[in-house]
Amino acid sequence: MEIIQLLEKLFPICRSITGNGIRETLNILSELAPIKQLEFPTGIQVFDWIIPKEWNIKDAYIKDKQGNKLVDFKENNLHVLGYSVPINKKVSKQELLSHIITLPDMPDAIPYATSYYKERWGFCIEHKKLENFIDDEYEVCIDSKLEEGFLTIGEGYIQGKTEDEILLSTYVCHPSMANNELSGPVVQTFLYKYLLSKKSDLNYSYRFLYVPETIGSITYLAHYGDVLKQKVKAGYVITCIGNDAPFTYKKSKQGDSLSDRAAINVLKSYNKEFNILDWFPWGSDERQYCSSGFNLPIGSLMRSLYGTYKEYHTSLDNLDFISEQAIKNSIQTYIDIIESIETNEIYINTNPHCEPQLGKRGLYPNLGSQKSYESYIKKIQWLLALSDGKHDVIDIAEKLNLPAKDFKDEINKLIEAGLLERYSRK
Amino acid sequence: MEIIQLLEKLFPICRSITGNGIRETLNILSELAPIKQLEFPTGIQVFDWIIPKEWNIKDAYIKDKQGNKLVDFKENNLHVLGYSVPINKKVSKQELLSHIITLPDMPDAIPYATSYYKERWGFCIEHKKLENFIDDEYEVCIDSKLEEGFLTIGEGYIQGKTEDEILLSTYVCHPSMANNELSGPVVQTFLYKYLLSKKSDLNYSYRFLYVPETIGSITYLAHYGDVLKQKVKAGYVITCIGNDAPFTYKKSKQGDSLSDRAAINVLKSYNKEFNILDWFPWGSDERQYCSSGFNLPIGSLMRSLYGTYKEYHTSLDNLDFISEQAIKNSIQTYIDIIESIETNEIYINTNPHCEPQLGKRGLYPNLGSQKSYESYIKKIQWLLALSDGKHDVIDIAEKLNLPAKDFKDEINKLIEAGLLERYSRK
Amino acid sequence: MEIIQLLEKLFPICRSITGNGIRETLNILSELAPIKQLEFPTGIQVFDWIIPKEWNIKDAYIKDKQGNKLVDFKENNLHVLGYSVPINKKVSKQELLSHIITLPDMPDAIPYATSYYKERWGFCIEHKKLENFIDDEYEVCIDSKLEEGFLTIGEGYIQGKTEDEILLSTYVCHPSMANNELSGPVVQTFLYKYLLSKKSDLNYSYRFLYVPETIGSITYLAHYGDVLKQKVKAGYVITCIGNDAPFTYKKSKQGDSLSDRAAINVLKSYNKEFNILDWFPWGSDERQYCSSGFNLPIGSLMRSLYGTYKEYHTSLDNLDFISEQAIKNSIQTYIDIIESIETNEIYINTNPHCEPQLGKRGLYPNLGSQKSYESYIKKIQWLLALSDGKHDVIDIAEKLNLPAKDFKDEINKLIEAGLLERYSRK
Repeated sequence: MEIIQLLEKLFPICRSITGNGIRETLNILSELAPIKQLEFPTGIQVFDWIIPKEWNIKDAYIKDKQGNKLVDFKENNLHVLGYSVPINKKVSKQELLSHIITLPDMPDAIPYATSYYKERWGFCIEHKKLENFIDDEYEVCIDSKLEEGFLTIGEGYIQGKTEDEILLSTYVCHPSMANNELSGPVVQTFLYKYLLSKKSDLNYSYRFLYVPETIGSITYLAHYGDVLKQKVKAGYVITCIGNDAPFTYKKSKQGDSLSDRAAINVLKSYNKEFNILDWFPWGSDERQYCSSGFNLPIGSLMRSLYGTYKEYHTSLDNLDFISEQAIKNSIQTYIDIIESIETNEIYINTNPHCEPQLGKRGLYPNLGSQKSYESYIKKIQWLLALSDGKHDVIDIAEKLNLPAKDFKDEINKLIEAGLLERYSRK
Repeated sequence: MEIIQLLEKLFPICRSITGNGIRETLNILSELAPIKQLEFPTGIQVFDWIIPKEWNIKDAYIKDKQGNKLVDFKENNLHVLGYSVPINKKVSKQELLSHIITLPDMPDAIPYATSYYKERWGFCIEHKKLENFIDDEYEVCIDSKLEEGFLTIGEGYIQGKTEDEILLSTYVCHPSMANNELSGPVVQTFLYKYLLSKKSDLNYSYRFLYVPETIGSITYLAHYGDVLKQKVKAGYVITCIGNDAPFTYKKSKQGDSLSDRAAINVLKSYNKEFNILDWFPWGSDERQYCSSGFNLPIGSLMRSLYGTYKEYHTSLDNLDFISEQAIKNSIQTYIDIIESIETNEIYINTNPHCEPQLGKRGLYPNLGSQKSYESYIKKIQWLLALSDGKHDVIDIAEKLNLPAKDFKDEINKLIEAGLLERYSRK
Repeated sequence: MEIIQLLEKLFPICRSITGNGIRETLNILSELAPIKQLEFPTGIQVFDWIIPKEWNIKDAYIKDKQGNKLVDFKENNLHVLGYSVPINKKVSKQELLSHIITLPDMPDAIPYATSYYKERWGFCIEHKKLENFIDDEYEVCIDSKLEEGFLTIGEGYIQGKTEDEILLSTYVCHPSMANNELSGPVVQTFLYKYLLSKKSDLNYSYRFLYVPETIGSITYLAHYGDVLKQKVKAGYVITCIGNDAPFTYKKSKQGDSLSDRAAINVLKSYNKEFNILDWFPWGSDERQYCSSGFNLPIGSLMRSLYGTYKEYHTSLDNLDFISEQAIKNSIQTYIDIIESIETNEIYINTNPHCEPQLGKRGLYPNLGSQKSYESYIKKIQWLLALSDGKHDVIDIAEKLNLPAKDFKDEINKLIEAGLLERYSRK
């Protein structure tokens, strides 16, 4: 299944923080890589929160007196306020308007709105459509259900050579929006698929979470937070990663975690524009992962930051807003970062007194160009110079503005020559 | 008593490092807030120094042969070299000129000069007046006394909830000059009066010193330095704070003391031009407070730095050089700093695992504007995120470029909701 | 012997990493200051290396069929590939060309090339001369010897008051090239001569090494590295220091060693353009001195960095490329750095409670100008303020952007007045 196909399949589904939309989404993603569905009963306490009732919806509309559908859920699932309680009655125009949300500044856009923790019903519509509401009375129907049930979390796992884990997390609770949110689960799942194909080489184990935002990560942490605290060495929240803007990296709260160092190492090496943001306590699930009680090393590589582009949380964040090229490039960037983390170790130069004689060990290769020779020999020299037990490969790679992953061959050559030994993972 | 009245009352008094000028000044300031006068006998040793004799002066003049007063102390007390020994005799023009100080570059200004530790007499005059000295002989009279007596220090005190102290210090030893020095005691005394009105809320105790510069702070430290070393957590030398220039903050020698952090936090939040200087070993009484033996956390918030404006130490530093508006604003700035220090504590988030649910606690208020809501919710989020025992309120306030004092309401709300607990003062 | 004379005497000698060229060079330099010649037998192991055979050469040429010398070692010793094995035979044009190195981009320059560890023969010639090679056959003669023998290292030493050492190292293995290398041994030897003249004042002992690059420093470290590790507190590799470019300082690998701090302190104080480079693992003998096993505090003060100027490693790096003025100025700069290291101590203010009264100790001198007075009094004030056991003289000197050596008089005055005491060398 290709990127575009997958996006088109997922886009129309009406996801929310609970319900069948998530399950359907996870089923489709599972065609690429196996995702287990964990179900947590509604009504249980997860830290300071209670899992709310499960919400499902079949249909919704507003009809005028002539029976014309002025608003139709089947045209765009954003038309219904998320978690709306069921309703089916005639209402006056005045009452109806108090249940309608629009964006006066963006008259062509349907806003995205929800009311998870307060029982309400409502519709979200294009502001310009308000002029069609000329009758005194309307028939409103929301065929939804709010019942006891389950909150669903998707989980993938790859067992690597060690129990140390990299955590990738994305969210699957937004209805038809493309950059926020579909780019996230799509990039994460292609990354997951790629890493599965490299499974036998992986030093780290990998955990992939597909959660409803906020309540999902809180629920997962309430059950498995202690395990994560012990095992997770790096990780990212994957979101808003599908449009053509430059990359934005939001650091983990730790500020200099392996996640931060690897992401910045890779972004710098591209010699393209990018932004780095210190952690801040709003945004996505890093709010929970980085809360003081856990303080996991979780950053987030995005393109346009949530809340800063005008299409955000509207119907304009659709499949036209993102591009296949951007998504492919985002997948590759996450791969580069993961491979840099995989390459990052601390080595010890076994011959620390003066330089070793490279020539007699055949380590001066006859490479094609002077330029590739220089790059090779400088990598060798820096590896030998800084493999003193205090610097890891990322430290060394920074000296040449290269991603750590680009040192893999040279490290292996030096290990074979007996000049480097693995010290320990930082 | 208003600022202008107070300035006009204090300006004509002939102050020096000892004598009745200080006492009279302190009596007038005491009408605003109680200032105790401490008297230290002349001749006693204070660290490396001896308190010099007490100096008082009634009159001084230079008359020409016709009996015209060419220079008259009663016109401007800067005309007499501070600490001049008494004299009353006829002198030749040549001898007289060796006792006259002028500023050739500023012919209209009377320079300010003193000779505390070497017995001399002299006059300071406008350079342009030298042309009036056409006679061969002059009558010079300085009706001063240099006698055993006392050095006077003014001290105010407010008992707060704890023994931890904030030290405010200014000097009262300059004759008729406005920015350096009257702005200092005036701002300090209005600040003192304001804090008295808030007495019941104060966490810190406050000590206000009015010293003759250098010898006064040395004398006080010689007697009470050990107490200050134990109690003082922050403080400032208040000087050169009356003219309309941008603020200049000179850091304490520690360089990152609470004083420094609070002052810079407040100045940054104004989004106006200001200067920060690292500590340097010349200037005012911070030279003594920050000497290695004490190393108190004493900075200094000024406007134009001493020695850098042309009116400094001349008769042009008069009441026209300063403004009521600047002084009012300086008082408010010191208040903002003090209130930020008062607000600065370390709190612990009692719910550190994931975010607490604010809605169920009524912490999502219905505020008027979106902007004030955003400011409120961001303060709440940062307080919860960084109240981990390692960050104080100033650290948190810096994240939003707000003064720490602006977090008071949100802190109280979170404490009431049981989400924050006071940890300890840093 | 003056600089120019010395350069002209040393320039024609054919130096290599072993052989009589080094010995002759050291003999000439010894006329300025005593240099002992240490001889290490060929074939012994020094860490990862084997000292190669000793190489000496008497003559070399290429003749065409008419017996014309197309290339003549006696005209320029760069014409022979360093360490060429002896040869004396007729060769075809094709074979000859495979043994000739030229620089197509610089047709007038003879390149400098060597083959120390792989037995070869070759000639280096101006690219434009290739057009003279029109015959089919040539007579090639290299009258060299590669035999068991010795590697020679020159060593000078000045015993100072302590065993703490400053290490100066330069190299003497390049044939006729001026900036790289003759500027190095010339500057080092004049510095050595100067320090000898100050011997009785020196706190540190001084070691001056004249090594063949790489193999020489490795050999020395293999024998005396443990001594250096224990004694050396600062030092520099002196190279590429003769042309008129701004100074370039390459830091030691430690990055904030005494060497680095003193060199940067002095360079900053000149208020002229200069460059600072972090350490990197290519270049000269600092590669060995700073290898992890030793990590000596060795930096390098240069002018144009090796490898970055077009004359580097060609016959254009000749006596015209450097200047007497630049060399004199380089010597003075190294002297200023050494004297700043000599002046750098930690002192304790014996009167740490408030300022001492300078007047009663005669420490307010009657200096000529206001400017020199201000400089003097500020030095005194900073010395007293920061002599708290945590700051050394370089720290203090940085506050006034002066070299540490300029504080010598004021330190001595304060010591005499009993206000400073030596604490310990950092």
